[in-house]
Amino acid sequence: MIPVSDLIERLRERGARSVALQFPAGLARQAPGTAAALRREGFDVIVSGDPCYGGCDLALDALAYADILVHFGHAPVEERPDVIYEPVRFDFDPGVLERVLPALHSRRIGLVTTVQHVHLVDAMAAFLRDHGIEAVIAPGDSRTPIPGQVLGCNFAAARATGADEILFVGTGVFHPIGIQLATRSRVVALDPFTGEVQEVDADRLVRRRAAVMEKARDAASFGIIVSTKSGQRRMDLARRLVSLSERAVLVAMREVSPAEMLDLGFGAYVNTACPRLAYDDQIRFPVAVLTPPEFEILCGARTWDDYTIDEYLAP
Amino acid sequence: MIPVSDLIERLRERGARSVALQFPAGLARQAPGTAAALRREGFDVIVSGDPCYGGCDLALDALAYADILVHFGHAPVEERPDVIYEPVRFDFDPGVLERVLPALHSRRIGLVTTVQHVHLVDAMAAFLRDHGIEAVIAPGDSRTPIPGQVLGCNFAAARATGADEILFVGTGVFHPIGIQLATRSRVVALDPFTGEVQEVDADRLVRRRAAVMEKARDAASFGIIVSTKSGQRRMDLARRLVSLSERAVLVAMREVSPAEMLDLGFGAYVNTACPRLAYDDQIRFPVAVLTPPEFEILCGARTWDDYTIDEYLAP
Repeated sequence: MIPVSDLIERLRERGARSVALQFPAGLARQAPGTAAALRREGFDVIVSGDPCYGGCDLALDALAYADILVHFGHAPVEERPDVIYEPVRFDFDPGVLERVLPALHSRRIGLVTTVQHVHLVDAMAAFLRDHGIEAVIAPGDSRTPIPGQVLGCNFAAARATGADEILFVGTGVFHPIGIQLATRSRVVALDPFTGEVQEVDADRLVRRRAAVMEKARDAASFGIIVSTKSGQRRMDLARRLVSLSERAVLVAMREVSPAEMLDLGFGAYVNTACPRLAYDDQIRFPVAVLTPPEFEILCGARTWDDYTIDEYLAP
Repeated sequence: MIPVSDLIERLRERGARSVALQFPAGLARQAPGTAAALRREGFDVIVSGDPCYGGCDLALDALAYADILVHFGHAPVEERPDVIYEPVRFDFDPGVLERVLPALHSRRIGLVTTVQHVHLVDAMAAFLRDHGIEAVIAPGDSRTPIPGQVLGCNFAAARATGADEILFVGTGVFHPIGIQLATRSRVVALDPFTGEVQEVDADRLVRRRAAVMEKARDAASFGIIVSTKSGQRRMDLARRLVSLSERAVLVAMREVSPAEMLDLGFGAYVNTACPRLAYDDQIRFPVAVLTPPEFEILCGARTWDDYTIDEYLAP
């Protein structure tokens, strides 16, 4: 159960009478209880029932009916006066970094993590210092407001460390592979819950993406997907990509969905919405879905040596 | 292939330079070709890639990037200066009404159909007149702008005939069952493509809905779904339903989706979005989804004798 007493105080301070609540899937079960608790305190409550995967996807539709939107689970990718962000913290013992010490080559490394763990970044740096390693923690850009924080679409805080070796603490391999492609540094990943350590290698991902690009090369038409979500609207990029090919047409989408891709029947798509979609979800998609840099390569506007991960950096 | 020469002329008359295109699933395959044809004529084109099931679901997100939205496949449920509706007609030989003559009891019947066939309504009435039957064709309300036209959510044109017997020409049994519940008249349905004739009976639907209501009765919480689609936002109704129960909370949804229902974990839902969802899609939903009149009955605000079909009538 999410504690609401502190939240209620902040809502009252702002004079809010009606509140919209938004939860990512993993926290959505908290919706009925949180809504009921706020209703008992006299607030008009509306819960957003649309899918939500990040702070880039604010429930502005629900906010249209409320004074304030409370967005749970993510840090801000944009500050707005009518949105309260309630990131959810997941703790672990910084001592787990013991596991990663043998895998580190340098005495000076960049340290990055995701929003759930970024409150521990100083404790992790202290642990490393006690073991003779200097951890560089750098601010990213305005989409990652907390120093040391990376997103699946934004590795600015890793790049800004300027380190040749970067330690990523968190789950999954997507972030560390992205960091490697974005920085060309050596990247070591530590899962703080399992203690698993690995040096990531982007080669497999790049080979897989090359195969997707080959599938797309002869498509009769390209749908250039542009998102209509609050923090995923890269319209300037999408328009620039359309200008690269006679075969390209803008396609506006809220949810980038296999069913609609199939219905519309474009031969291939280019995704300017959440950058992770093309990498993570190709398996779900009925046709090739390229990233913007990949489409640039296909159109001859970028060289293969310049292959890079798609990032959504602050303008 | 949708012919675009007439459309291009109308777009030029209006001085449009950029165009958003929206297709329902059945026509979506026309998107790449139609977009390419308009692009060749010098228009900036953006295709809406969101699901679309009716004129109640305008792609306003895509229209935000264009001068005009062209909405294919449906008649207007609301007129807007920046939307061109391009309904698609499906022809048949009015002589098929021969099949329905033995099933009609009266010499004076109401005649209704769906938007695809409503251009044939006068020819059908002429055929019936030639066979001694007066067909009453009545205007509905502003959501069904063509006399004789019904929607799955609006049977005003059937009710307005004032007839004790109504002939519905079209496919499926949902519309005629809705007409029966809405008018309490005898309703005969003719499928103009197969020639199949049936007198519909709403009893089975009502028994099925009674079982769904029983399932919902003891739910710990009710999510009152309110749509954020252009022509499905029944917020006043949703707020009134919330006021009927301490256990009710507003839930804003774009697509009414089983996955999000399950994630949010309300014990049952009440649907104020597209009225057909509760009837047609209960089988897809993880918990009971009631119509507004059904929730009113559950809360004691309506009697069971007043059971009626959920309609979305013009305000």
